[in-house]
Amino acid sequence: MGKALAVSPLAPATQPLLSPLAGVKLATCAAGIRYQGRTDLLLVELAAETSVAGVLTTSLTRSAPVDWCRNGLQGGRARGLLVNSGNSNAFTGKAGYNAMQRSLEAAASMLNCTKEEVFVASTGVIGEVLNDAKLTAVLPALQQSLDANGWAEAARAIMTTDTFPKAATRQIDVAGKTVTLHGIAKGSGMIAPDMATMLAFLFTDAAIEPALLQSMLTQANTQSFNCMTVDGDTSTSDTCLLFATGQGATITKTEAALFQHALTELMIELAQLVAKDGEGASKFITIRVTGAESQEAARKVGLSIGNSPLVKTAIAGEDANWGRIVMAVGKSGQRAERDLLTVKMGGVVMARNGQLEPGYDETPVREHLQGQDILIEVDLGLGSCEATVWTCDLTHGYITINADYRS
Amino acid sequence: MGKALAVSPLAPATQPLLSPLAGVKLATCAAGIRYQGRTDLLLVELAAETSVAGVLTTSLTRSAPVDWCRNGLQGGRARGLLVNSGNSNAFTGKAGYNAMQRSLEAAASMLNCTKEEVFVASTGVIGEVLNDAKLTAVLPALQQSLDANGWAEAARAIMTTDTFPKAATRQIDVAGKTVTLHGIAKGSGMIAPDMATMLAFLFTDAAIEPALLQSMLTQANTQSFNCMTVDGDTSTSDTCLLFATGQGATITKTEAALFQHALTELMIELAQLVAKDGEGASKFITIRVTGAESQEAARKVGLSIGNSPLVKTAIAGEDANWGRIVMAVGKSGQRAERDLLTVKMGGVVMARNGQLEPGYDETPVREHLQGQDILIEVDLGLGSCEATVWTCDLTHGYITINADYRS
Repeated sequence: MGKALAVSPLAPATQPLLSPLAGVKLATCAAGIRYQGRTDLLLVELAAETSVAGVLTTSLTRSAPVDWCRNGLQGGRARGLLVNSGNSNAFTGKAGYNAMQRSLEAAASMLNCTKEEVFVASTGVIGEVLNDAKLTAVLPALQQSLDANGWAEAARAIMTTDTFPKAATRQIDVAGKTVTLHGIAKGSGMIAPDMATMLAFLFTDAAIEPALLQSMLTQANTQSFNCMTVDGDTSTSDTCLLFATGQGATITKTEAALFQHALTELMIELAQLVAKDGEGASKFITIRVTGAESQEAARKVGLSIGNSPLVKTAIAGEDANWGRIVMAVGKSGQRAERDLLTVKMGGVVMARNGQLEPGYDETPVREHLQGQDILIEVDLGLGSCEATVWTCDLTHGYITINADYRS
Repeated sequence: MGKALAVSPLAPATQPLLSPLAGVKLATCAAGIRYQGRTDLLLVELAAETSVAGVLTTSLTRSAPVDWCRNGLQGGRARGLLVNSGNSNAFTGKAGYNAMQRSLEAAASMLNCTKEEVFVASTGVIGEVLNDAKLTAVLPALQQSLDANGWAEAARAIMTTDTFPKAATRQIDVAGKTVTLHGIAKGSGMIAPDMATMLAFLFTDAAIEPALLQSMLTQANTQSFNCMTVDGDTSTSDTCLLFATGQGATITKTEAALFQHALTELMIELAQLVAKDGEGASKFITIRVTGAESQEAARKVGLSIGNSPLVKTAIAGEDANWGRIVMAVGKSGQRAERDLLTVKMGGVVMARNGQLEPGYDETPVREHLQGQDILIEVDLGLGSCEATVWTCDLTHGYITINADYRS
């Protein structure tokens, strides 16, 4: 598994404290699935009224747990969540599916619900069948330790090679009642032969019907996790689930805008944390694309820039290389007019109307690039739509993590 | 410009000798456009009967020379080719266009033809207007030194940060006459702030009408340069031109299959040479995708594997990580059935039917990965179409070349 990685230089100085959220109890333990000396299993018990929404990887080689969650979302109801780290149970065929089924049956019987109300996620090495015996052996003890205060431990138990736990919280006021949203996520440190996997679990005490919950989650996801990239490699296990326990205020279409805003902000914060823990990251990069004909076009141009190894290595080298940004716009597959493009770094116009800005002085851009928070702005000059994408730079650390260590 | 790079460990031991080709004269010189102490300008004079075909970058931020070639191809006739290295004249607006026009006028007047019969390519730094005075100043001397034996020098003059010149040749027999095909290419070493650019110039003494020439080039390109990737970043200057000087045998639809085969082979050899000179490359990777529903689907799956930083770093680390190959298949956007997939490395079946092959022994795969020539085979199990893609691994050398050197 290689050496432990140093904490990312982009890790936030403090972690938010997640207070108890009505309808959610959590427990973690070290089941010894793969890692030694750390927790690797999370059990969450959800109130009987809980509705659920989810977005899952579109990979065609997705894991069995992803397929299970997709089916479970049809019912719209959840009573439990079981997450293990260290083994993704992906590409493990029938044996992996059976191991998952036995875990589900054990959890459902313990939580007194149907299998279909238990959601699962597995993250870690692929191609090895999950040892469900290790998991079911500790389930009774896990149930005993279920507690409303388990958030910090939960954020740690789902980590693989993340260098810091990721959590965020928001509160809104709905008709005089405080509605809370909590979220934890993991990704995307990695040591061979593990794969990058992004997991996010979001919880609210509000009462929200599954259809509305799903529509809000899908919309927020478009502006958060789907706007974040580390290396352009899509995992077989990406899973984002949102649980609404129904213990607090009711959110209908009337209150949806307020909730939508808080949910999107929460998810953007988590997405940024994942980018900040990108493998080998030394700089956090925000790419703002404006003047596009659609939000989707803006997002695709942003991701083309954010996935370009030439742009990412230039940022790592603190090189004010706007030519590589122009290149990435050109290859995005989206409409672009060379002679309408404006490119800025750190707020300084570098190129405008298809050529270098007259009198352009690189000095302030070079200073900006010496910092940890890099801003790239591209205006396409075609329309009024925009999108923001987050990523990190591409450094020797990425190669070291993914090539130099053997499994 | 950074330090000179060591020659790629994947460079071929010998270079093919390109003999004179009827209807082609070449000259090179050091015009001092950017580099010191090396040639950077190539002039080619073509016989009056020469027809031309071309494939050009689809980038929407392409250079002025690319636009010029696209227009020139409408005419189907060529008398001259002018290529400079060190400056790509891309994203240089009206000033760059005017510099190109002055170069074209000088060359056309010297070659006694129209501007439209002169093709141009520029490769190197972007965003700086080409200093055409340096170029036109040496044109008369270049014309004096035009020679049928200038092939080796031509392959060198178009290099930017390539570590070795790239040339290939083929001969076929058409009705008792020998038809020769020569090709030179450059790509894709790079030092900030230069961009990867792929240039290829192909020549034959055959007589071939422009429409047939274009159709054969397009088909060969689909199986050669379009199946090759170093880092997935598409250049603003990619240009591949094929000139048929009409001095030898005539190729019509009847003889097209033979010529097509030779042309495709020649271009595959050049494409492989470019991958072998990929930035920081330590291993050459061949990815063969079979069992696809269409050739295009097979190519896209192959490129998804070949562009995956996780696959490329695993190969660099000699890590038999088939899970990352499965991941790259899953994210390709092409149809895939997890439970029909077969994955091989070095001819050894690693995974079949969506799971690890029973009794799989990693030893021979690990030995294969210690070599320089890596073979990945994926069978999708869906149809009978296939494609082969070539790339190189992703090493610390790539980061060093693109991040550590400043312009």
